[in-house]
Amino acid sequence: MEKIRRNDRMSAAIRILSSNPNRVFTLGYFCELFSTAKSTMSEDIALLQQVVRTFDLGEVETVTGAAGGVRWRPRVSAGKAREAIEALCAKLSGTDRLLPGGFLYYSDILSMPEIVNQMGNILASEYYGREPDFVLTMETKGIPVAFATANALGIPLVIARHSSKVYEGSAVNINYVSGSGNIETMSLSRRAVRENQQALIVDDFLKGGGTARGMIDLMREFNVNVIGTAFVMATAEPENKRITGAKALMTLRVEEDPARAIVTPADWLRSSDEGSVQG
Amino acid sequence: MEKIRRNDRMSAAIRILSSNPNRVFTLGYFCELFSTAKSTMSEDIALLQQVVRTFDLGEVETVTGAAGGVRWRPRVSAGKAREAIEALCAKLSGTDRLLPGGFLYYSDILSMPEIVNQMGNILASEYYGREPDFVLTMETKGIPVAFATANALGIPLVIARHSSKVYEGSAVNINYVSGSGNIETMSLSRRAVRENQQALIVDDFLKGGGTARGMIDLMREFNVNVIGTAFVMATAEPENKRITGAKALMTLRVEEDPARAIVTPADWLRSSDEGSVQG
Repeated sequence: MEKIRRNDRMSAAIRILSSNPNRVFTLGYFCELFSTAKSTMSEDIALLQQVVRTFDLGEVETVTGAAGGVRWRPRVSAGKAREAIEALCAKLSGTDRLLPGGFLYYSDILSMPEIVNQMGNILASEYYGREPDFVLTMETKGIPVAFATANALGIPLVIARHSSKVYEGSAVNINYVSGSGNIETMSLSRRAVRENQQALIVDDFLKGGGTARGMIDLMREFNVNVIGTAFVMATAEPENKRITGAKALMTLRVEEDPARAIVTPADWLRSSDEGSVQG
Repeated sequence: MEKIRRNDRMSAAIRILSSNPNRVFTLGYFCELFSTAKSTMSEDIALLQQVVRTFDLGEVETVTGAAGGVRWRPRVSAGKAREAIEALCAKLSGTDRLLPGGFLYYSDILSMPEIVNQMGNILASEYYGREPDFVLTMETKGIPVAFATANALGIPLVIARHSSKVYEGSAVNINYVSGSGNIETMSLSRRAVRENQQALIVDDFLKGGGTARGMIDLMREFNVNVIGTAFVMATAEPENKRITGAKALMTLRVEEDPARAIVTPADWLRSSDEGSVQG
């Protein structure tokens, strides 16, 4: 192999870091891979930190201490987050996507990788400081965005089901009151999580908060601490939901006569802070 | 802003390309972003092609013609794919994960972003040449890997449901015979796909092929052409399945006395080709 230049080292390093979000790589890992000295590699990393900042491409962080090294986080700046969510709101507002009963069709949005990854990165940016151990969602629609959030946080996704399945092994089932007022079941494999872990709940839609409440109750059964609840969309009504402290990217209001959907970015995205969303 | 050096351009370009897999960016896009000449940018891209090849980090391709430019594909080399799948097989084989009835617990594997992305990249590598318009899966367990495959291909994910939901709008429902011999329903929103598109079916598990057959029938209702069927795991038995031409990453065989799971990499991953999986 030819001599590995700074160009090559920096390009390969950012590619490796960014395909493993939030994972700490030791400096030694890169030194060995590129057959280079620690001092040279440190300079490379410092240059990378600058380039991702200049072009708003996430964050390269050095981590000090025994488990130290370097990691990449797909943190989204406040400006970029607001811009992305505003574009989505414009797409979802109006009459095209309104269904009978005041429901909004946006399943397509929840399955487009580029949009889903962006939403996952924005939500993850809010929770790096809380260090969740896994993301929990309830099947089905929220799974892609929950997966993207878990990916950005570098942690597993755990999926609660409507019923226990033979291929999940023994499970804990709870009953909860759904949005429509029905009693429904939520099931999670015993093997899926461990006691004293920290969970971040991510789902696509928050209305009354029944399903989210169910997920919180389910976590209590496992002695797991819920450190946050994050959603793609929350309805303006009812104002009082069964959970508090939820973060949603967008707020949905349905006007009746004439019928149309008004989707707006959440207030916390509107802050004037031009740094990261978390500030 | 200071002058943008080759280091910076190459690092930023690979970051931008790799966060949008399979999307063609014009050379002009990068020239404008970095205020640089086309000839210089072409050199940068040529150097990037070499560096991702050297470190086995996917593929940077130049695309000629009117819609030309440059794109990145997370193509996995045959050697790397085999190594990753062999490690998974070792993890899944044995007695730990075997459940009553000969089922294998691997929901955790299907939700770990690093593993799921790797599997998605390997599956996508097989289908770049076929240019699917979307990935189709059936809820629930296969959603993360189907999403990762769609992400690598730069196309939307479409999720079929067990029943039609109010928030999906009008839907096409079909009945199919599931693995357990029951008649089940599969539902897909009319808005989800368009006539004459090309679908790639991705799911977690292939046994008899009933669900996959259902998905193929569902696509026929939409006049959509299925260009491939890809799975994480296929059972060795029954040998004759209801679909042909399926690609699975692993094969599962359950021995009875003593009970244990034997999981092996699929034959197509064992080829001696050291280039891309597709060759």
